[in-house]
Amino acid sequence: MDLQQSYKEHVAKMRAYQEAISLLYWDLRTGAPKKGVDLRSETIGTLSSELFALSTSDEFGEVLSGLEAEKIGLDPVLKRSVEESRKEYDLSKKIPPAAYKEFVVLQSKAESVWETAKEESDFAMFEPYLEKLVAKTKEMIGYWGEKNGSAYNTLLDQYEPGMTTDVLDEVFGKLRQRIGSLVKKIADSDNKPETDFLYSHFPKEAQRDFSLQILQQLGYDFDAGRLDETVHPFMTNINRQDIRVTTKYDEHDFRSAVFGTIHECGHAVYEQNLGSKLAGMPVETGASMGIHESQSLFFENFIGRSENFWNRNYAALQHASPQGFGDVEKSQYLRAINEAKPSLIRIEADELTYALHIMVRYELEKGLFNGDLQVKDLPELWNAKYEEYLGIRPSTDAEGILQDVHWAGASFGYFPSYALGYIYAAQFKNAMMKDLPNFDALLEEGNAAPILEWLTENVHQHGAMKKPLEILEDATGEGLNADYLADYLEKKYTSLYNLN
Amino acid sequence: MDLQQSYKEHVAKMRAYQEAISLLYWDLRTGAPKKGVDLRSETIGTLSSELFALSTSDEFGEVLSGLEAEKIGLDPVLKRSVEESRKEYDLSKKIPPAAYKEFVVLQSKAESVWETAKEESDFAMFEPYLEKLVAKTKEMIGYWGEKNGSAYNTLLDQYEPGMTTDVLDEVFGKLRQRIGSLVKKIADSDNKPETDFLYSHFPKEAQRDFSLQILQQLGYDFDAGRLDETVHPFMTNINRQDIRVTTKYDEHDFRSAVFGTIHECGHAVYEQNLGSKLAGMPVETGASMGIHESQSLFFENFIGRSENFWNRNYAALQHASPQGFGDVEKSQYLRAINEAKPSLIRIEADELTYALHIMVRYELEKGLFNGDLQVKDLPELWNAKYEEYLGIRPSTDAEGILQDVHWAGASFGYFPSYALGYIYAAQFKNAMMKDLPNFDALLEEGNAAPILEWLTENVHQHGAMKKPLEILEDATGEGLNADYLADYLEKKYTSLYNLN
Repeated sequence: MDLQQSYKEHVAKMRAYQEAISLLYWDLRTGAPKKGVDLRSETIGTLSSELFALSTSDEFGEVLSGLEAEKIGLDPVLKRSVEESRKEYDLSKKIPPAAYKEFVVLQSKAESVWETAKEESDFAMFEPYLEKLVAKTKEMIGYWGEKNGSAYNTLLDQYEPGMTTDVLDEVFGKLRQRIGSLVKKIADSDNKPETDFLYSHFPKEAQRDFSLQILQQLGYDFDAGRLDETVHPFMTNINRQDIRVTTKYDEHDFRSAVFGTIHECGHAVYEQNLGSKLAGMPVETGASMGIHESQSLFFENFIGRSENFWNRNYAALQHASPQGFGDVEKSQYLRAINEAKPSLIRIEADELTYALHIMVRYELEKGLFNGDLQVKDLPELWNAKYEEYLGIRPSTDAEGILQDVHWAGASFGYFPSYALGYIYAAQFKNAMMKDLPNFDALLEEGNAAPILEWLTENVHQHGAMKKPLEILEDATGEGLNADYLADYLEKKYTSLYNLN
Repeated sequence: MDLQQSYKEHVAKMRAYQEAISLLYWDLRTGAPKKGVDLRSETIGTLSSELFALSTSDEFGEVLSGLEAEKIGLDPVLKRSVEESRKEYDLSKKIPPAAYKEFVVLQSKAESVWETAKEESDFAMFEPYLEKLVAKTKEMIGYWGEKNGSAYNTLLDQYEPGMTTDVLDEVFGKLRQRIGSLVKKIADSDNKPETDFLYSHFPKEAQRDFSLQILQQLGYDFDAGRLDETVHPFMTNINRQDIRVTTKYDEHDFRSAVFGTIHECGHAVYEQNLGSKLAGMPVETGASMGIHESQSLFFENFIGRSENFWNRNYAALQHASPQGFGDVEKSQYLRAINEAKPSLIRIEADELTYALHIMVRYELEKGLFNGDLQVKDLPELWNAKYEEYLGIRPSTDAEGILQDVHWAGASFGYFPSYALGYIYAAQFKNAMMKDLPNFDALLEEGNAAPILEWLTENVHQHGAMKKPLEILEDATGEGLNADYLADYLEKKYTSLYNLN
């Protein structure tokens, strides 16, 4: 059979498996009955193994080699897709099957040990597993070969193609200084916002209705998606015309649902607006973790926490929860939802200090893979870094080094993408303002369409046809630059806190 | 590898595929966004082909042959499972792959033609497809070989193992006479129930809450299931601990949701109470279509339409819809929900006349496969049979021969199971009354547990370990006998309509 045809059929089959697996997960997290969970895990395991077998089959390898040999004749989408398939194929195939299996089993054990260790706030329990996870990951890097000159760069490249510690050190360094000085000024300010009313009772149904309204306003396509409830919110691509968002309703803190939904909406519109010529191909996906996060953070912060968005929507929020906001001035509300205050738990961090949390873990990961940092020294180093960067010190491992699951799954190199997303988002915002100087007015009119068009034109449609830094440069005319984020934060917080 | 181990691994893998496929369907029917439907169909198609390949692989065939050779040493569950697997395997394998594929394509085309033909009420449009469906099905019977002496018996056996036209002719004949005479008496009676209030506005949310209460009361396990909304209600086994029911809310006819839910509950508790020693094996399923239907009809009619059930629940229904039932006496309500009136559409038929609809289609199917009935003559014969059995005549094909989709999917031989379910249910009820003479009191107390235990003991736990007639005989001490259903209907309707 024709090689191109074989390739397309093979990736179509893999896509079908992926749709089934995504739906099995989505369902598990949005209401599958609890007794069925064990069998569901088996089912996910079986289909995941089948998908892995498909993606690493010798037959597929031959198709890839064949297409690589005739590369010149391929159209751009097919060419980039073959590159993506090759990258994934090699990542899996270079590892001896026995070593791979051992690694998967280790991760699965480590996750359950981490869970108990976190509950008991006992790093020592998790330490031997983390030792092995780091050692095994180094072994994998050995099989893959170093990329961009260091072990840790190899890992970074898997989440953020082309990213290196040189680049991160520079941008994170600058950003940390400027955020740090803002954090200090705010700590010294006695102009703190009142926030009590944020915690007033807000019935779930009313939160849901309000969230649905906001999704609609922000251009989320409900004919190609839906909103459901879950414990740890996420967006999932079931298929290209079925992009679902989930949220969590806390009746005593509406921000979880409302800002969470706006965040996931940013991820979802990215997937809903991937170019139709990418349909069914491996490049029909986000360009990277960081670019994906830039879209969710753009929505959450540059839209969701902005004054003009609430000029449009505050009355509706008051209407949805008169008890909570009936007597609260909009200006009070805006100060409250933008409060900045150093805290210990990353996922609860505010817009200003969030990046500092990421930097702590980045420094430690870099030390583990490129330096001589020892696993046993991590808790002490973690605490010291929090003291240095955020001015507060965890008193337990649970609220310190053990707070996130990522390491138990050997997801080293993943965290920096969270902060990169902020930086990208600020750069996109700055570039967008040149094309849409009426940005604020659009939000006030509830007209997100031109904003979505700009993002689709410059980011969404390209999927993984471009590398993250190519997207950034083509959209903004320059490379990675944390100044835009720092400028934005300075302007915003100076005004909110009346700083000088 | 050990043969038994190979077999278990193979069926576990097929089960995983089945779980994924069931969930993909469930999701499609309970709220998947409309734009994603085309890709979803592709996904279901891909996984179904994979499952078909697994269930007909030469490797699996060898495992089956191996196990058949050492049959004596197998435990009963494994032995029956191998028999089931063999039956399925042969049904698929005896057909040449090209003929099978052609048949599948034909069915898929026929379904879409049927849809349009029904909309336009034009049998002539569907006729050539139905011709081919019948011819192709006869070709399949040629490959399979005749079972129990006739072509149509071969089809019956696929839905109701061991069932034959001899048996059906006898029981349907008797039943038709006795139902027919009741229908006539009721038609002549001027003691008709008032039914207007059944159509009063009943908000969806209140219907849902009431349906959930009823499910709970009837022993449905919500930790191993959930209730969702759909257009054509169904029960689905996602996995053995995840048995879902669906319902449809009509705000101007609450019966759709309430009696529909009770019906699906009967199917669901069957699946929830299959014996744990059947776990993961092919016999972990209902004994037949008819036995399954006996459980749903037992719940819907012998429980849901009974006086004692409503002695328990009528106040709650009035509370759920004061507008509809606040001023209606319970006795009036009971007469209304048990109204018997010949109608043209099977799925809207009442308890008394439902079986007559089934008999019409049974007679025609039998004529198509065992006699010389021609497809072109079907509409006229259909209408004549309705006139003969029900006393009313369809005036269009849409409300006549074209009303149901089954034939478009070549599901010939399936319909009789619906009526068999009624007959079985009445026999089970009769036998149960000997063990639970306090049946009525239990319903009045809202205590369904002993009823469910009886059904589990006698029916549910056995899954497909026994043939349908074995289950019937072991539970009731006799063979198929329509007298119990006829007796029940006579007693019920004589009392409801004050007949003599």
